[in-house]
Amino acid sequence: MTDAVQTIDVAVFGAGRIGKIHAANLARQPGVRLKYVVDVNRAAAEALAAQHGAQVADVDGALGDASIGASVICSSTDTHADLIVKSAAQRKHVFCEKPVDLTLERARSCADAVARAGVVCMIGFQRRFDPTFAALKARLDAGEIGTPEMLVVTSRDPGAPPVEYIRHSGGIFKDMLIHDFDIFRWILDDEADTLHATGSCLSDPAIAEAGDIDSTAVTIRTRRGRLCQINTARRAAYGYDQRFEVIGSSGMLQAGNLRPTEVTAYSKTEVSTDVPEAFFLERYRAAYALEIAHFFDAVTHGKPVRTTVADGLKALELAQAATRSWREGRAIQLGEAS
Amino acid sequence: MTDAVQTIDVAVFGAGRIGKIHAANLARQPGVRLKYVVDVNRAAAEALAAQHGAQVADVDGALGDASIGASVICSSTDTHADLIVKSAAQRKHVFCEKPVDLTLERARSCADAVARAGVVCMIGFQRRFDPTFAALKARLDAGEIGTPEMLVVTSRDPGAPPVEYIRHSGGIFKDMLIHDFDIFRWILDDEADTLHATGSCLSDPAIAEAGDIDSTAVTIRTRRGRLCQINTARRAAYGYDQRFEVIGSSGMLQAGNLRPTEVTAYSKTEVSTDVPEAFFLERYRAAYALEIAHFFDAVTHGKPVRTTVADGLKALELAQAATRSWREGRAIQLGEAS
Amino acid sequence: MTDAVQTIDVAVFGAGRIGKIHAANLARQPGVRLKYVVDVNRAAAEALAAQHGAQVADVDGALGDASIGASVICSSTDTHADLIVKSAAQRKHVFCEKPVDLTLERARSCADAVARAGVVCMIGFQRRFDPTFAALKARLDAGEIGTPEMLVVTSRDPGAPPVEYIRHSGGIFKDMLIHDFDIFRWILDDEADTLHATGSCLSDPAIAEAGDIDSTAVTIRTRRGRLCQINTARRAAYGYDQRFEVIGSSGMLQAGNLRPTEVTAYSKTEVSTDVPEAFFLERYRAAYALEIAHFFDAVTHGKPVRTTVADGLKALELAQAATRSWREGRAIQLGEAS
Amino acid sequence: MTDAVQTIDVAVFGAGRIGKIHAANLARQPGVRLKYVVDVNRAAAEALAAQHGAQVADVDGALGDASIGASVICSSTDTHADLIVKSAAQRKHVFCEKPVDLTLERARSCADAVARAGVVCMIGFQRRFDPTFAALKARLDAGEIGTPEMLVVTSRDPGAPPVEYIRHSGGIFKDMLIHDFDIFRWILDDEADTLHATGSCLSDPAIAEAGDIDSTAVTIRTRRGRLCQINTARRAAYGYDQRFEVIGSSGMLQAGNLRPTEVTAYSKTEVSTDVPEAFFLERYRAAYALEIAHFFDAVTHGKPVRTTVADGLKALELAQAATRSWREGRAIQLGEAS
Repeated sequence: MTDAVQTIDVAVFGAGRIGKIHAANLARQPGVRLKYVVDVNRAAAEALAAQHGAQVADVDGALGDASIGASVICSSTDTHADLIVKSAAQRKHVFCEKPVDLTLERARSCADAVARAGVVCMIGFQRRFDPTFAALKARLDAGEIGTPEMLVVTSRDPGAPPVEYIRHSGGIFKDMLIHDFDIFRWILDDEADTLHATGSCLSDPAIAEAGDIDSTAVTIRTRRGRLCQINTARRAAYGYDQRFEVIGSSGMLQAGNLRPTEVTAYSKTEVSTDVPEAFFLERYRAAYALEIAHFFDAVTHGKPVRTTVADGLKALELAQAATRSWREGRAIQLGEAS
Repeated sequence: MTDAVQTIDVAVFGAGRIGKIHAANLARQPGVRLKYVVDVNRAAAEALAAQHGAQVADVDGALGDASIGASVICSSTDTHADLIVKSAAQRKHVFCEKPVDLTLERARSCADAVARAGVVCMIGFQRRFDPTFAALKARLDAGEIGTPEMLVVTSRDPGAPPVEYIRHSGGIFKDMLIHDFDIFRWILDDEADTLHATGSCLSDPAIAEAGDIDSTAVTIRTRRGRLCQINTARRAAYGYDQRFEVIGSSGMLQAGNLRPTEVTAYSKTEVSTDVPEAFFLERYRAAYALEIAHFFDAVTHGKPVRTTVADGLKALELAQAATRSWREGRAIQLGEAS
Repeated sequence: MTDAVQTIDVAVFGAGRIGKIHAANLARQPGVRLKYVVDVNRAAAEALAAQHGAQVADVDGALGDASIGASVICSSTDTHADLIVKSAAQRKHVFCEKPVDLTLERARSCADAVARAGVVCMIGFQRRFDPTFAALKARLDAGEIGTPEMLVVTSRDPGAPPVEYIRHSGGIFKDMLIHDFDIFRWILDDEADTLHATGSCLSDPAIAEAGDIDSTAVTIRTRRGRLCQINTARRAAYGYDQRFEVIGSSGMLQAGNLRPTEVTAYSKTEVSTDVPEAFFLERYRAAYALEIAHFFDAVTHGKPVRTTVADGLKALELAQAATRSWREGRAIQLGEAS
Repeated sequence: MTDAVQTIDVAVFGAGRIGKIHAANLARQPGVRLKYVVDVNRAAAEALAAQHGAQVADVDGALGDASIGASVICSSTDTHADLIVKSAAQRKHVFCEKPVDLTLERARSCADAVARAGVVCMIGFQRRFDPTFAALKARLDAGEIGTPEMLVVTSRDPGAPPVEYIRHSGGIFKDMLIHDFDIFRWILDDEADTLHATGSCLSDPAIAEAGDIDSTAVTIRTRRGRLCQINTARRAAYGYDQRFEVIGSSGMLQAGNLRPTEVTAYSKTEVSTDVPEAFFLERYRAAYALEIAHFFDAVTHGKPVRTTVADGLKALELAQAATRSWREGRAIQLGEAS
């Protein structure tokens, strides 16, 4: 194949948990080379760079290298917008973790910068690449259950992040439900008309003190009258729970959890199986690999990406509406002046 | 056992689908005798009476017979309140199908009448007697998953009733979700603080013309901050779907559907099992038998019933709040002047 | 319906565990009346008779009553043959628990007696009436998986009966696997050509001292070359396990266990469901009711029964061959002089 | 870590389906380099070599290179013994696909050669490395279900290989059940005392003409009296089916199939999930990666391998006994002069 002839050099920003995942996955793409790792934590940058035969650089050094074709942004949320804008300015294609930014204004300016530069910008909504979720979506699109009418999303984390993280996270709706809002738009193939969100802080008062909640219940009604319910928890005692089901006019499709093994145990008192995969790194291992492959495939072949910066904006709008709904105790009409 | 020495004679009001179920079940209770069947449709009354060696009577005849110890009310909703009040006046114990009435005012007067007469009045929330639901509740009460934090209820019918029925049903929230509101109160062991309901008519425009909807999404936040989401559909193309799950501080309990058989088929393209039990008569067969046994056990031994007229009122209040929330497009504070 | 006009009076022989089940089930058949209960344990006979408004009688008294239309034989195995022959001689239809007898000779004389008398004789292979097993068989017969090729039967009891019982049981193959041999013939719709059986005593040396084993592995090859494997245990620590699967030329059908409830629990370490129904009385509750209904339907309407005395003989032949294979450590050709 | 300092150069023999798998997996091991690909089909060797930056060589060239530390043998079965012996003679460590050889004599001479040379020789029983099977084994070893008493193995392929392959395969017992015999020894941790095998050719008469069968039923009784039943089919119409269950003195453990996705579909007539993973390359993808990692870990650190040439011999003995049992229609005492 001649596809791999031209190599794309890549700079990864952020050498944390998710940066390591993306670095390892992109290192496996034919025709892709990890050239730079950038992180304010120099030791982390060096360790990751060493692992992949890459170099450590700072932002300007990395983006100033004309040979770099793409930025993979996995740094903290507050750096996303700046890195997107700078990358676009240097005509680098961009893969950026969610969310684009915590404010719609800055997120919109990212979208503008990307549009002006004419570069690819993909947002890391990896769930769309999960083989189970993607298979469900393909069957839905093939008409297997007729027209979608309702979506029920279960999205629970096994434990809350540190309160210090929560304080700067933008709140549960922007930090955690942003994924679920993207699932909603993708699966129901429609936009929100009204949204109602409520929630509670049930697991740890420190979360409430940080101005956030740990359990939410969101309802969206779409322009076409379709319904969506999302329930989330920052701490599901039994583990990571990622399921959804779509009711259509002629059937239902459910996406279930994955398990580490298929062992079933029979004791005198119960029949048991494994708990679901521990957390997102395990649950979405395949999805992370597939989304990076998709990004470089799009960049190399000039194809559209599946999760654009516009999708990032839309999810952020929903997260903002949900935050407002929760704070004001009322249903929100999307499109209300915010 | 001497329990069965004294026989309770019973009048059943309503010889339709649910009347037949209750008649057959009470006929199996030791110490219980079906004496009268009352129905405006004389042929139906006669057929059911003949099947159980009972007699046909009219309301006054049945309630005027001093030997009758209990009324089992399975007639149409608009007759419930009147029959409860008349039965109570004659010191008959009352088992009445849900809902007590479509208006809170009349329902409250039923509660008053029952209280004054000092008779037992049990409302037919049979789901609490379903072996699966009851086992879940017992494990929850035993502390298996810690403190309950969230409840997600899936409650879908396989098909809508005739539009003529819908027109007089009081709407989906009083007709269908009344059961789910009772489940909510029973499982979370808490009362609603705020409620939000929305919905759509997606399956048949005639339902919208009758002033109703066929799909709903309800969210309740309780006084203690617990969350509940209920999603319902009058027409789930794949059948009758009755599930719920409770997330607690240390685990989760799910109540699943029942299936007619445990056959699994492997073809070249899929592994398949039965669809859930067809509808409520099949799904709740055991529950109907157990609730009638519970009623007569309570009546005979002076024990409290598990689903009182007060529970009927509370569920009706929630149904009314949901109807209002849906119509007005806003969240409702329970206790608002209605 | 005029079907129920003529009432059949019935004598039940044996007031033990299974006698009680059959008595209760036949009492529910329209047109069937339990007239006599016969048991050497007079107190047991009286208790069961009292429960159903029947009388206690001895064998000759019961069979000498010309009004008796059918014998339901649930007494100990060593009495079966005698009661069948005597019942037939008095032109009573016969329902008899498995096995017909422990020896082929006596079992054959029962078959002869029944044939001479021209009465119905049904053997209590209740598993054929289990809704799950029967649904599987119906789908198999409808061609859903093509031609059957292999059958794997799992048949495990939750605990061994008392050693005293085992000593007179005829051994595990006649006592326990007789049901599985009937399942084999019914499902594969073919007869055994060769059979190999082996086994061990693994749970309790007292069983070995009684000349029996508690775990068996049987393989049958049919005349048409179809294969069957049966694995059994008298003591499965985790409960009663009754499953089988049929591989056909175009698919597979599995019959699974039934569970008391459909509760699923998620803890930090596992996802668990109920263990299967505790034992045969629970697992085959529906089957027992359906087989008795089938028997009286056959008797009343002159229809053939599904499990004939010939089926009883065939299962016994296999049990005998299995016993021999195990004892002699070699495969047996069915039809060998035994 | 200094573990990876010294690189092991490897020669892969066989560039077919399984050779490609092993080549790709070993290329991912740190400290392991694929140096040569050897295949009589030069084009296949070149393609695989090119993919991994390796060279094409012939047997003597590859084994004559002193820098080569290990042979990975994935060529056709008839070449295994020769390559093992030659590799051992050159002090190369050996990873060889099953079976060692089709005759016990040559297999034993391989074991001798390996022992004399003091090299590692691992046989490719990859199932022991499957995460589900390995987790079951670990729980069994931890005593979760007490002492193992019975093992039931289901092992069915989705379709038979070409008859030409079957003709030289050594027959179904050496070709296919060799894996199941290894599972038996590994799980029950015991050796066979007696073995009975039977079988049929049910899917394609050409298989019978080639002297083989497509469906088998094997029973093994171990020295300690434990039982094992294995049922296999070369063509399971519904796909690749790889399950087993172990009954222990205090519970049961089952290893189930893996599915491509966790989508569940509800239609009007059934609830369905995916069929199992298509075939061994998909089902055992993780196992193949883990076994190669295990091999190089053992070679590098001087640890014992989990599946030795002795295990290969034992499995072959069982396959040979099974072949004989089937042909002679009798149970075989292991250790009989063969």
